[in-house]
Parts: sequence; C-alpha cells; structure tokens
Amino acid sequence: MPEQWYNIQADMPNKVLPALHPANKQPVGPEDLAPLFPMELIKQEVSQERYIEIPEEVQDIYKIWRPSPLIRATNFEKALDAPVKIYYKNESVSPPGSHKPNTAVPQAYYNYKEGVKRLTTETGAGQWGSALSFATQFFGIELQVFMVKVSFIQKPYRKSMMNTWGASVVASPSDLTESGRKILAEDPDSPGSLGIAISEAIEAAVMDENTKYSLGSVLNHVLLHQTVIGLEAVKQFEKTDDYPDVVIGCFGGGSNFSGISFPFIRENLTNGKNIRIIAVEPESCPKLTRGKFLYDFGDTVGLTPLFPMYTLGHNFMPPKIHAGGLRYHGAGPIVSQLLKDKLFEAKSVGQRECFEAGVKFARTEGIIPAPETSHAIAQVIREAEQARKEGKPKTILFNFSGHGLVDMAAYDQYFAGELKDYSVSQEEINKSVDSLEALPIG
Amino acid sequence: MPEQWYNIQADMPNKVLPALHPANKQPVGPEDLAPLFPMELIKQEVSQERYIEIPEEVQDIYKIWRPSPLIRATNFEKALDAPVKIYYKNESVSPPGSHKPNTAVPQAYYNYKEGVKRLTTETGAGQWGSALSFATQFFGIELQVFMVKVSFIQKPYRKSMMNTWGASVVASPSDLTESGRKILAEDPDSPGSLGIAISEAIEAAVMDENTKYSLGSVLNHVLLHQTVIGLEAVKQFEKTDDYPDVVIGCFGGGSNFSGISFPFIRENLTNGKNIRIIAVEPESCPKLTRGKFLYDFGDTVGLTPLFPMYTLGHNFMPPKIHAGGLRYHGAGPIVSQLLKDKLFEAKSVGQRECFEAGVKFARTEGIIPAPETSHAIAQVIREAEQARKEGKPKTILFNFSGHGLVDMAAYDQYFAGELKDYSVSQEEINKSVDSLEALPIG
Repeated sequence: MPEQWYNIQADMPNKVLPALHPANKQPVGPEDLAPLFPMELIKQEVSQERYIEIPEEVQDIYKIWRPSPLIRATNFEKALDAPVKIYYKNESVSPPGSHKPNTAVPQAYYNYKEGVKRLTTETGAGQWGSALSFATQFFGIELQVFMVKVSFIQKPYRKSMMNTWGASVVASPSDLTESGRKILAEDPDSPGSLGIAISEAIEAAVMDENTKYSLGSVLNHVLLHQTVIGLEAVKQFEKTDDYPDVVIGCFGGGSNFSGISFPFIRENLTNGKNIRIIAVEPESCPKLTRGKFLYDFGDTVGLTPLFPMYTLGHNFMPPKIHAGGLRYHGAGPIVSQLLKDKLFEAKSVGQRECFEAGVKFARTEGIIPAPETSHAIAQVIREAEQARKEGKPKTILFNFSGHGLVDMAAYDQYFAGELKDYSVSQEEINKSVDSLEALPIG
Repeated sequence: MPEQWYNIQADMPNKVLPALHPANKQPVGPEDLAPLFPMELIKQEVSQERYIEIPEEVQDIYKIWRPSPLIRATNFEKALDAPVKIYYKNESVSPPGSHKPNTAVPQAYYNYKEGVKRLTTETGAGQWGSALSFATQFFGIELQVFMVKVSFIQKPYRKSMMNTWGASVVASPSDLTESGRKILAEDPDSPGSLGIAISEAIEAAVMDENTKYSLGSVLNHVLLHQTVIGLEAVKQFEKTDDYPDVVIGCFGGGSNFSGISFPFIRENLTNGKNIRIIAVEPESCPKLTRGKFLYDFGDTVGLTPLFPMYTLGHNFMPPKIHAGGLRYHGAGPIVSQLLKDKLFEAKSVGQRECFEAGVKFARTEGIIPAPETSHAIAQVIREAEQARKEGKPKTILFNFSGHGLVDMAAYDQYFAGELKDYSVSQEEINKSVDSLEALPIG
C-alpha cells in the first residue's frame, strides 16, 4: 500500500489558476478558507510537493479495505468479443461501497487533529455522505449531511447507512438554511442539486464557529487523496505482463477520475508513455464536453470562492438521472486545467446506455456497478467495439468506483423500461453560462 | 488461497449418521439423490477424504474476492474496554456481500460440468439467493429462486439484485407448486419459512428432468465448501503473533459457522489445541440450545430425506425476525453430531441485543453487519464482558459473514424502537417436535 499520495500540481505543464475571492477578485488566502477547512488541508490545496505523506492513522484505516483489488475482467472480455484486455480497480470493497472513503478518512483525520468537533457536508447519490459518516465516527466527529432531495427520496437506504454510522441527514433544499429557504421560495418542488446542497452545508458550517465543512470532490486536496487508487494500480500492473493503453473513469467533479488517472498522466508527462486517459460524464450534465472554461462558483448560491473550471453555470439544474454523484455543474480546477491542456479526453453517455453496460458487467463479472460507475463501463464497451472494428488490440483499465447495492431501485426502473435519456440543448447551456457574473479566463 | 477444502468427516470421532429414505427408513443412496444433485456433489456428501481439490475454474472465480481479509478490530476492542483481542474474517467483500458464494460457485460449477441447464433454490434473507444468482450466470445456468415471503417484502433490493444477475424470483409460499398451494390453503397470510421455500424449490426441480436443486446450507457438501474461510484464517493467523482462544459464528443451518470453525475444530481434534468454538443462534429459533436430536425432514412439506439433526420440528414456524438466514428449524447433520459430541458450544441471543451489537460494531469498525452476522458480534461482546469480569485476556475470532447494506430497513426499525424480541416457550417446542413422525436416534 502506498505511503504517500501523488500531487499532480508538481508536474502540471501549466499550473492551476488560483481560486478568487468573489468580492475583490483576488486570489484567496489561507485565512479566507480557514473558517471552512483545517489548515493542513488548506496547505495541501496549494502544495507543489510531488509526494505527500499519508499519516499512519489514515493508513491504519485504509487497511480495512486497501489495497483494493486490480482484477482482470476475463468474462466481460469474452462477452465483448473484441481484441481487448480489460482490468478494473475495485473500489467497491470499501465498507461504504465506493472510492469516497479515500479522502473522507484523511479529511476527518486532519479535522480531528485540529480539534474540530463537528462537520457539515453535502451528498448526491449518498456515496460521499456515507463515506464521511463512516470516516468521522473513527474520530468522534459529529456530522450533518445535506442530501440532494431527489436522491434522498430515490435512495432511502443511504440515509439509513449514514444514520447507522451516527450522522444526521436532511433533504436539500431544506428550511434549515437561508440558501435552502431561498431555493424553496423560488421552487417548492426543487429536486435539489449538488450545487444547492453545497451552499447549505457551507452556510451551516460558517454559522457555527466549532463546525467546519468537508467536500467530497472538486478541490485539489480531495483529488490528491484519491491518487492512492492509481498509485496502487501502477504497482499492481508491475505484477502482470500487461500495461494499460487506455485509462477510464466516470466524472462528476473529478475525484474518482483523478484517483485512477493522475498517476498514469504522470507516466505520460514524465516517463514518455502515451496512455489515453478518458473521463466519462452523463450526456445530461456535460460540463467537460460542452461546458465553458470560466471562473465560476462551486455552489449554487455563491458562497464559495470563484474557481477556474469547465462549467455549465452554477445555476444549471441537471436532470434527475440516477447517477446522482455526477449531477454537478463544474469540474475541479486541476482537471479543468488538464483538459484545457489536452492531457485527457472527455466523453459523454446517456443513462440507458450506462444501465445496459452495467447489467452486462453484472452478468459477466458478477459485480453490480453503481449508476455512476456504469458510465465508465459504457465507455469501455465503446473502446472494445472500436478495437474490434479496427482490429487493434488494446489493454483497458477502468475505475470500478462503487457498487450499486444501494441503488437497486434504479435497476428495477431500467428493467421495467422506465428509464429515459435526457438531452440538454446547447441553447440551454449557453443561457446558463451567459447568465453568470463570471470572470472569463485568459 | 487454499487449493483444497477441508472435509471434517475424515476427523470426526463419531461419524455422521446417514440420511434415511422416508419410505423405507433405509440410508439413501446416490440414486435417490440423483434427481436433485449432480453426482460430484453426491460423492462429496459422503466422502471421507480429508482434503478435496477446489477445481481451478472455481478458484478463478474465488479470486474475485478471496482470500478475504482477516482484520483486527482495534476500535471495537477499545470501545469494549476489556482485555480482548478481536479478529474478524470479512466475508462481506464478496460481490453478493456474504460468505454464500463460497459454495454457490462450486455448486453451479459441478452442475454445469454435468450438463445441468436450470436450477431451483430457496432463500431466506436473500443472501443465498443472490449468491447463487451471481454464481449461475458464470456458467450460463438459468435459476429460479423461491424467496421466503416475509423477506421478499422486507428486502425488495435483494430481489432486484437477483434479477440483475438474471435469476427469476418468486415469493414463497407461492401458487406455483403443490407444496406452496397446500400451505396457502391452510394459511393464506403465511409469512413463509425456509422450510416451506425448500419444499417448493425441490418440487419445482423434480417436476422437470432438466432441472436440479441447490441448497445453501445444512448439507455436508455445502459445509465442506465453506471451509475455505477457516483454512484461510488459520494461514492468516500464522502472519500475526496471535492465535484465537475463541472462534464464533452465527448459526442458521450451519454454513458460515462450519466455514470458520471446522479447520479450528481440526486443530482441537488433531493438534491438541483447546479453542472454544461457539455457534450463536436467535433466541426465537433455538434448535441448537433447545431443540432435540432426531431424524427429521429438511423441509416443511416432507420432500427431503430424513436427516439426523437438532431440530425444532419441520413444522416449526419461526417468528419474523430480520435475520431471515437464521430462521430455519434444523441444524445440518455434521454440526448436529459435533454438538452432540460436545465439540462446540451453542448460545442464543435476542434480536435487540443483536442490533445493539451491530450498531456498536458499525460505529467503531465502520462496517455495517447483516442482521445474521450481528448474532456473532453480540456473543463477542458477551465474551469480552466476561473477560473483563474475570480479568482473563483472550483472543477472539469471529466470522463477519455478510454486510447489511441491503438490510437497512431493519436498522431503521431498530432506531425507531420498533424491533422486538420473540421468545419461544418450551411447550411450543415440545409440541412441534412431538408432532413429528420422526425417528429417534440411538
């Protein structure tokens, strides 16, 4: 198991642009972020060190499920009947069932070290909220989770999981915060979004000086912690005769994608490799493939700094797809810069293609993917089909970011033929982005 | 990973008594079992070989999640504040989330090798049904699952999982079989039981000559396959400075208990060790602690051979506890003989104590146990408390047989204070057992 995380900021050809204070448009300093985050995470946010030590206390908890298995999907390969070898990194073996504890545990740990007694956070599908509930209990930290309302309703077991780990969960938008009340006044039936839930969680944290806030994606320190996935994969490939030609991860804000891909992007940047790196997002929330690179808020109400990111606009309301973890308007600053510099490709897929891929994987490899994860699998199938057409063999690695055992209602809907694809018009995206009082970049 | 299973029949001081044909009371032969099982499993049922090879094809699938981790529960230890070291074998990392695939995969494999195209089975909480759904898809075998009605209603996600893996699922008692129709005629609101579901699955198998039947516990070959758990644990302990003084497993028909304990009972029998071995059953279904050792049917309707077992009587209707996998009237023949010979101890615990233990474990170790598994954890806590009182340190190993992520509704009920304990009167047990046209033993 790696004893350090990999910080891609040390190797980026173009450095990530700073977050800006919305009032004076100047780069935010540590003091601006201190009400929200412990100092160690703020340092990691801007660190240029290539490797950062994983604290022993964090390694001890990682050991419950790490290193996660790297598995060759031989049955899935056979079913695809294409000249491909397919490997997946199985992050679903963590107790909450996804990659999210990789950052939840160190975030809880650093907060604990700095005396924080209470945290707030948001969650989409519930993967992040349950991971942070899992993590905070190790350190005696109280947790309040704002869960996007549509997921709160679709996924009642997620709430039960978080309760079992001792967290309190509220559907967002809620009437507990000014942000929530504002949204509800405009639309009492709002299904919520990650952007709204972030606003609520931040507001609830700054209201109370003993409370800090924790984010499950987007920020640099979050992406840093996830690199344990790819670092393990690089080592695990040394024990096989294979090496990936393509690395694939699904994409919400960037956390699982970065986790699997950054150590391989490093191989491209510094070891002369030429691995294709692909992020896969929902067609219905296409910030990477159709968004604009702008300074925008990380939340809907506008409580965060302005981040340089590919965005659909912080007011964009994503359709109610089941992959709740991918319903986010923007991409993290590091991944946005990397995309701008063409260091990876972005693709989008529709919901039904994803479930079809997920079922095919479950029926061959035996593991039921989360709806988010099925986006990566859909792209694997596309790559395999292309390899068959071109007669070009390739080795594919993808991140199996989480299992779908708490998302079975979505599969029921798929089997009943009730799932639909949602398309978003370019007009809608332009309208959302143009409405921003956002700073253009460059 | 072990390449052989351990067959305790080779080492039993008193051999297991044969199953009897209900008509002539003579030991059943291979030809009697052939309509239900493939010949290789029938051979394993009576084999006296100490070790039996695990086929390579089975090992390849085991590798998806095996070897399962042996983890020291240090946080749980701290919370118990007792002089104990606690280890658990984490069987919840399998894709269906429990130990059940350890036997589902070889059973599907041997059926496949002998050309079987279709299987039937029963399931209580759904752990077994999902494990066999997972296993059969690797070998292109069609599967029909009779799921105990109370669990079918309590656990809708289990049905979805089985469907996703391609199995069909029907609530039992159903009107698809004569057995089911008979039960429904007597009690249209019957919540079902494992005994009834077994009758239905057997009947559905014998009705069709291309269909065989698969059982998830009780039988000798099932217990054999599960020994991979304990064999791994013995090896894994060699890498620690510890060795268990106590080995604990929850008990339904015997499969996970046997899996963790048989290799340690072997240490007692042949290597002079003195490990305490404890099976833990629900107070509401107490065949080991309060049942009688008799020849009884394995199912409710009486379609199976007569097995020598500790039983509450095949008509016993267990209360509707959430640990559906433990709602079975009898104990497997091997475990029954071992209990009679005092080679392990049996304990029983109530439902609320189990959930209290389960939540304590989830909040310290971070993994949410299945209601079945929480029985083992409750006993671990009792052992720790005893160690504290006596001031005697000990090392405890228990089998974490499965996670509870698909049982969260049970936790909701527990937190809402809606769970109750069920007691069973001795009169009720006597009445149920005395009504048997059963053969006494010895």
